[in-house]
Amino acid sequence: MEYVNEQVRDLKIAYIGGGSRGWAWGLMSDLAMNADMSGRVALYDIDPEAARYNAVIGNRIRELPDCRSRWEYEAVETIGDALTGADFVVISIMPGTFDEMASDVHTPEQYGIWQSVGDTTGPGGILRSLRTAPMMEQIAHAIRDYAPGAWVINYTNPMAICVRALYDAFPQIKAFGCCHEVFGTQKVLAAAMKEVLGLEADRSEIKVNVVGVNHFTWFTEARYRNLDLFPVYAEFGNRYHETGYGDQVDSNWMNNAFACREKVKLDLFRRFGYIAAAGDRHLAEFCPAAWYLKDPDTAHSYGFGLTTVDWRKGDLVRRREKSQRLYDGAQAFELAPTGEEGVEQMRALLGLRELVSNVNIPNVGQIPNLPLGAVVETNAVFRSDSLQPVFAGPVPEAIHGLIAPIADIQLLTAQAIRERDLETAYQAFVQDPLMTISPIQARELFDRMVENTRHYLGMYRREA
Amino acid sequence: MEYVNEQVRDLKIAYIGGGSRGWAWGLMSDLAMNADMSGRVALYDIDPEAARYNAVIGNRIRELPDCRSRWEYEAVETIGDALTGADFVVISIMPGTFDEMASDVHTPEQYGIWQSVGDTTGPGGILRSLRTAPMMEQIAHAIRDYAPGAWVINYTNPMAICVRALYDAFPQIKAFGCCHEVFGTQKVLAAAMKEVLGLEADRSEIKVNVVGVNHFTWFTEARYRNLDLFPVYAEFGNRYHETGYGDQVDSNWMNNAFACREKVKLDLFRRFGYIAAAGDRHLAEFCPAAWYLKDPDTAHSYGFGLTTVDWRKGDLVRRREKSQRLYDGAQAFELAPTGEEGVEQMRALLGLRELVSNVNIPNVGQIPNLPLGAVVETNAVFRSDSLQPVFAGPVPEAIHGLIAPIADIQLLTAQAIRERDLETAYQAFVQDPLMTISPIQARELFDRMVENTRHYLGMYRREA
Amino acid sequence: MEYVNEQVRDLKIAYIGGGSRGWAWGLMSDLAMNADMSGRVALYDIDPEAARYNAVIGNRIRELPDCRSRWEYEAVETIGDALTGADFVVISIMPGTFDEMASDVHTPEQYGIWQSVGDTTGPGGILRSLRTAPMMEQIAHAIRDYAPGAWVINYTNPMAICVRALYDAFPQIKAFGCCHEVFGTQKVLAAAMKEVLGLEADRSEIKVNVVGVNHFTWFTEARYRNLDLFPVYAEFGNRYHETGYGDQVDSNWMNNAFACREKVKLDLFRRFGYIAAAGDRHLAEFCPAAWYLKDPDTAHSYGFGLTTVDWRKGDLVRRREKSQRLYDGAQAFELAPTGEEGVEQMRALLGLRELVSNVNIPNVGQIPNLPLGAVVETNAVFRSDSLQPVFAGPVPEAIHGLIAPIADIQLLTAQAIRERDLETAYQAFVQDPLMTISPIQARELFDRMVENTRHYLGMYRREA
Amino acid sequence: MEYVNEQVRDLKIAYIGGGSRGWAWGLMSDLAMNADMSGRVALYDIDPEAARYNAVIGNRIRELPDCRSRWEYEAVETIGDALTGADFVVISIMPGTFDEMASDVHTPEQYGIWQSVGDTTGPGGILRSLRTAPMMEQIAHAIRDYAPGAWVINYTNPMAICVRALYDAFPQIKAFGCCHEVFGTQKVLAAAMKEVLGLEADRSEIKVNVVGVNHFTWFTEARYRNLDLFPVYAEFGNRYHETGYGDQVDSNWMNNAFACREKVKLDLFRRFGYIAAAGDRHLAEFCPAAWYLKDPDTAHSYGFGLTTVDWRKGDLVRRREKSQRLYDGAQAFELAPTGEEGVEQMRALLGLRELVSNVNIPNVGQIPNLPLGAVVETNAVFRSDSLQPVFAGPVPEAIHGLIAPIADIQLLTAQAIRERDLETAYQAFVQDPLMTISPIQARELFDRMVENTRHYLGMYRREA
Repeated sequence: MEYVNEQVRDLKIAYIGGGSRGWAWGLMSDLAMNADMSGRVALYDIDPEAARYNAVIGNRIRELPDCRSRWEYEAVETIGDALTGADFVVISIMPGTFDEMASDVHTPEQYGIWQSVGDTTGPGGILRSLRTAPMMEQIAHAIRDYAPGAWVINYTNPMAICVRALYDAFPQIKAFGCCHEVFGTQKVLAAAMKEVLGLEADRSEIKVNVVGVNHFTWFTEARYRNLDLFPVYAEFGNRYHETGYGDQVDSNWMNNAFACREKVKLDLFRRFGYIAAAGDRHLAEFCPAAWYLKDPDTAHSYGFGLTTVDWRKGDLVRRREKSQRLYDGAQAFELAPTGEEGVEQMRALLGLRELVSNVNIPNVGQIPNLPLGAVVETNAVFRSDSLQPVFAGPVPEAIHGLIAPIADIQLLTAQAIRERDLETAYQAFVQDPLMTISPIQARELFDRMVENTRHYLGMYRREA
Repeated sequence: MEYVNEQVRDLKIAYIGGGSRGWAWGLMSDLAMNADMSGRVALYDIDPEAARYNAVIGNRIRELPDCRSRWEYEAVETIGDALTGADFVVISIMPGTFDEMASDVHTPEQYGIWQSVGDTTGPGGILRSLRTAPMMEQIAHAIRDYAPGAWVINYTNPMAICVRALYDAFPQIKAFGCCHEVFGTQKVLAAAMKEVLGLEADRSEIKVNVVGVNHFTWFTEARYRNLDLFPVYAEFGNRYHETGYGDQVDSNWMNNAFACREKVKLDLFRRFGYIAAAGDRHLAEFCPAAWYLKDPDTAHSYGFGLTTVDWRKGDLVRRREKSQRLYDGAQAFELAPTGEEGVEQMRALLGLRELVSNVNIPNVGQIPNLPLGAVVETNAVFRSDSLQPVFAGPVPEAIHGLIAPIADIQLLTAQAIRERDLETAYQAFVQDPLMTISPIQARELFDRMVENTRHYLGMYRREA
Repeated sequence: MEYVNEQVRDLKIAYIGGGSRGWAWGLMSDLAMNADMSGRVALYDIDPEAARYNAVIGNRIRELPDCRSRWEYEAVETIGDALTGADFVVISIMPGTFDEMASDVHTPEQYGIWQSVGDTTGPGGILRSLRTAPMMEQIAHAIRDYAPGAWVINYTNPMAICVRALYDAFPQIKAFGCCHEVFGTQKVLAAAMKEVLGLEADRSEIKVNVVGVNHFTWFTEARYRNLDLFPVYAEFGNRYHETGYGDQVDSNWMNNAFACREKVKLDLFRRFGYIAAAGDRHLAEFCPAAWYLKDPDTAHSYGFGLTTVDWRKGDLVRRREKSQRLYDGAQAFELAPTGEEGVEQMRALLGLRELVSNVNIPNVGQIPNLPLGAVVETNAVFRSDSLQPVFAGPVPEAIHGLIAPIADIQLLTAQAIRERDLETAYQAFVQDPLMTISPIQARELFDRMVENTRHYLGMYRREA
Repeated sequence: MEYVNEQVRDLKIAYIGGGSRGWAWGLMSDLAMNADMSGRVALYDIDPEAARYNAVIGNRIRELPDCRSRWEYEAVETIGDALTGADFVVISIMPGTFDEMASDVHTPEQYGIWQSVGDTTGPGGILRSLRTAPMMEQIAHAIRDYAPGAWVINYTNPMAICVRALYDAFPQIKAFGCCHEVFGTQKVLAAAMKEVLGLEADRSEIKVNVVGVNHFTWFTEARYRNLDLFPVYAEFGNRYHETGYGDQVDSNWMNNAFACREKVKLDLFRRFGYIAAAGDRHLAEFCPAAWYLKDPDTAHSYGFGLTTVDWRKGDLVRRREKSQRLYDGAQAFELAPTGEEGVEQMRALLGLRELVSNVNIPNVGQIPNLPLGAVVETNAVFRSDSLQPVFAGPVPEAIHGLIAPIADIQLLTAQAIRERDLETAYQAFVQDPLMTISPIQARELFDRMVENTRHYLGMYRREA
């Protein structure tokens, strides 16, 4: 990598999970539309064909008229090949298959436990953690061996556990986790500004103070220029907390697996006074089950859907088909900004700009009333080869009792992973706020979910 | 007060709630059986007749043959009279009447929320907090004005909130809260030693490290001489976790409002590896409702009863009758050690001995992973005019997620009390682990419980 | 104040110490050269004529051809007039006269204690603290009463004590302290880059992590784009630690009261491995006296001068004359960027930009191994109505033992100020690393310095 | 080891440094005079003959009429022999010879740096640390391998560094450091009570709160029964701070290497308000050199002597001769209580009693404003197989600036030891408050002291 005339050339990005048919395409698009960096992207995937497809797709991009920078894409056979010489590492992998995810999401339903996503928290999130974190450890060890100085951006869920596992396996790693849920909530605030004040703003102009854990992040401050957005949001809540907010014409939203009418967000704001900053489907899973996830009807009454794994399986078929068309050239790759900040983060870490944005990293004190070491989400300053959290202040007392136990469960899960101990994992499992069943049933459920995904859990010890 | 020949003379104890027909008699007995202190006890009660009765009862004690020290008992008309010149202040009051307690305990049952005690945590504990803490504040102000250097021993529940309120109202107060639940659990350990090893020990010989909040305290270490009692307790659990422990002949234990067969304790030990150290009726209330308090049958299946307020009302009648008999001289006052440590704590604070025992005081760091200022229970060293907590170490990760949210709820309740703000109290109320109902129902229940006890809640503001 | 077309109009700035013949002119210049803010500046000074002069001077600026924005300057009679309606408050005052400063700087010389500045630390800094902080308290009370929501920028020394006093007097104040010493050290790094690598950079492109207390700040990281500047600075040190760096031709630097040849800075770097980031005259005063301030010869051997108060008095005469010329119109006001960041900070706080820069504010955890509440200097993020410290990390172990005692002395001095207690001030005084004399001499010196400046210390109690 | 009838039998104590002609004899005496423990003591020493002599001496004790328990003494050849099966390990070793100590104490004198002891802090203490800590690491590794569950009592200086090294080398070690300086200060308080009030008390009846680092410990509270001893000590100071306290007849105290007339202690009390709790010779070394150690005259003016290593060499000759007489039977071993608490600590750790006393262990929060991990001295509770620090509270602000830098220097020295890096050691060395010389001289002195003791420092790396 070198600087030439305010430009960075010969950058190398390693993409772990490089066969991805979503995040990878987004990164390709954002790289192409940015002018001051160029280089190559090494795509590594346990599905080598998917990586090869993406290399072909990526290499076509530089022929597009709107492409502003030149990137070479290459599918590599080993993670070492991908990492050697890398300046940045992007991780977006799928831990296991949708069959495992089906167990995560739907087995608890047989015990009356409903999850709207099932990939972060709750019984599904914990089981997903158990199989994902060892993969992260392997990746971290490879980074230690092949690219110890590279910056590592993780997009894989469960975010907090993944980032924790990266640091547990290689404490000197320069890793952070990125998530767009905060951006989505900035957009809700922009909508509130437009509704209430008739004022238009881009989401990036809305300045927020972020505290919490990924997917259960909260804004304790939100401003546009010199304007405090809390009263604006309060008025927005007055108008929409009963009906929900969003396109009323789309009458079939109840069938939509990703529906979110912001009613959870507005209910939490009205009860606790702070702005929960993630999609409602995520937020609901961190609250006591009786609030929003007692059963599917309760979820629907709050305007959000339960995403089935069947839907995901169908979606995957659609993405595979698109991949084939892009590969064949039957469909042109469309350059459009994704709204993600990965490329801007890279530019900032290269010294091309300064950036203040939200990230997931271990708590070193940026949130003084959450445990040190827990992976928390706050703003951070990105500068040349430097990422420093902004001191976000304590979680407000009113919501500390909601957030802190989640951090505890994640720390206990991380301990279970480090010690490869399913008994400790069960201790975390049984404390989750979605677990409204007896200890005996909880044990049975846990054992079934472990059994269903045993192919990925062979490294764990079970005490007699 | 003065020292003469290794004895303390002319001590003055102020007893707030001096008409008590339980704790007061216990203190009288323990004082009488101890030889190296003498003086007078000023009894103050909002029921002056009850205090007068107790003065008569107390003054009869020194005629008993086993009485070892001379104490004068006096019913006083004002709290200032009680406190002026006091070296110690004992607080054991009843906040409101059993009618309010009936609302605390039984109104939630109409929403499917069951409480086995209802005086510490859960919806009942929070409402009791709201009406008790302002009384504590008044007492603290009086102590500040009349006896700022006195040591203050609180026995009133909810313990953590009461101690917090004393310190909030008079930060220089030298107060601590005492509770015998830990002693009871030491007795369970003594029973385990006898069962498993055939070894007999007094509960005071069993040395424990105490962490947690009152009534949800845990032992992270337990030893007798050089013997680690954790393996002993594990074997005890193997034997009794299914049947429960205790007198099998007493077939009617299921009807007993105070039944406790240690099954909750043993279940928690087997799942989390640490010894929960309070009666099962208390422990159950801090856990997720689905564990032990889903309904009365679940409670009974774990061998403990739900104490009704009707039972308490009946018990009060019995105690009143006994009071009358003691007053009349129809029944002799029986001198017997209570097993409480109040008198030993006084002796230690006077420099007559050294004592290491468990107390409830604000966290200054004795439990580093609970919030500073939360009232926690740990061991402390009692010495001449000095009470210092022992550094108890962090709450183990496996149970931190159970205990920490309780501390959060108590801190939020304390904030609601300081700010006289029912909205904040509701934020705490709705986060309680026993609250398995929707936010809408929770609001209705809260409003009803406030309305039921409004006579004691006039100082609170409700936002429009 | 209002936003119109990306511009802020009708801003009001209150300038306390508005008769200043240095900082005030700099602010006028920077305001005039910035295009997107306009409004008025209220000048308040205990020397009303000086403020009136500056109003005339300031109002002439808008006629200059390079002036890019319109500002009205007004001398006001009371601090309340200045503050009412203010959006920003700038504080740059002179505490007492140069006669008091002569005592601060030169009385200790009679005891063999040499100070190169005498306004921040050492015996002079402590005495200056004692008379300045009560002035700051008065200003803070006026801000509380007249402009509680305004942002407050302090330039007055001793910086840490002044900021602490503002917060002690009005805890909700939105105040921070600014100092350009860090900028000067960024320039030294730019010089090192040019010397060693032949690379040119503006000081603002050099990204540093700042830790410490004002005038004894250190860089633990320094980068330009992707370049680590520590090895560059090490090589720079190899070349210049013996000769010093700077214009060799200026043979009379030894007579220059502000001489700084960076030898102290380079010596500290070579011994401790981190970059001390203030002028050598300041740095020397925080180190043990034997290092750089044993006597004037030692100071000169390290290439820096001892600034005499006589020099300052002469300089004041020159500034008064310039003021007269500017007032008369005999000399034109010269618009030139000062390099200070006050205007950029205002723009950021108004939401016109985002800024990461160094500030002095109470420690809330941004430096985890300095005491909470101590005023520390780190980077912070300035955004719309928001100032949040960046988490700077711990002070490195190698230099913690140098910095932490300074924070202790400042906290103890601040306590002495709050309690108006000269005995406590003496406890701080005697612990200063420049105090190489016996306790008895130290007491005598302290008493003399108090006596010399007694006109400003009437509010302090002395114990018998 | 086993319990039989309230007695512990078959205890094994390993004594590392078992040829000791001071501490070892004291332990023999205390063990013999205690009735409820018996067993054997394995003496290990790098001077095997010294150990053999002590075995003979020890085994004669049980024939003495006052001997109350039976102990077998045995000189063993390897540390493994000593440790295998040990319940307790006592460490009291001499690091190097008095020739190295002569360098520690007297080389700095050539630079005008005076030390009254030179074994704990200052240049001598740091050099002694560098050669002692690696020995402690070896012992800790042996304990890990042969007796990981044993309790380890260290008497070796420099205490803080030794204890830190034990924990660094074997983090699970159950080690603590004991020192009698606190006891000596309790005796001074007893003398003050007698002088001022005419009241007699044993030192153990005086209850103190201890904070600080070994040999620079302070009492923040001191009480006898219900009596606050601070006013008593203040009056004592009024009477004796000028003359000093102690036997006036002993006119040759100025020649006494161990003279201590408490003038340092009283001066510190009068200036800072807290009771420094070690011998004056130790206290003086932690303060700025100008206070008490400017030169020998200054020391003498404060009533304490500078202990020469020649005196120590002469003393060793006397102890060797006594050893020979004891070994030969020419002199009878005298049983007398030493006043040390080692045996009582053992009894408490065996569950035979409860004990609250002062110890040196790593800070886990018992002193919240000193760094975690620094070895601090506070009270602790000794109980069955348990040692828990009492929460001592923060070091008072007035003296924090004196104590905290010492902890910093010790932590930096410990880092130098762990990393075997003399450059880091020099960074600590140059920060010591006794170092009143220029950095260049300091470097020369350091290099000479390293050279003088190089035989013991072969494991350290020096950077080019």
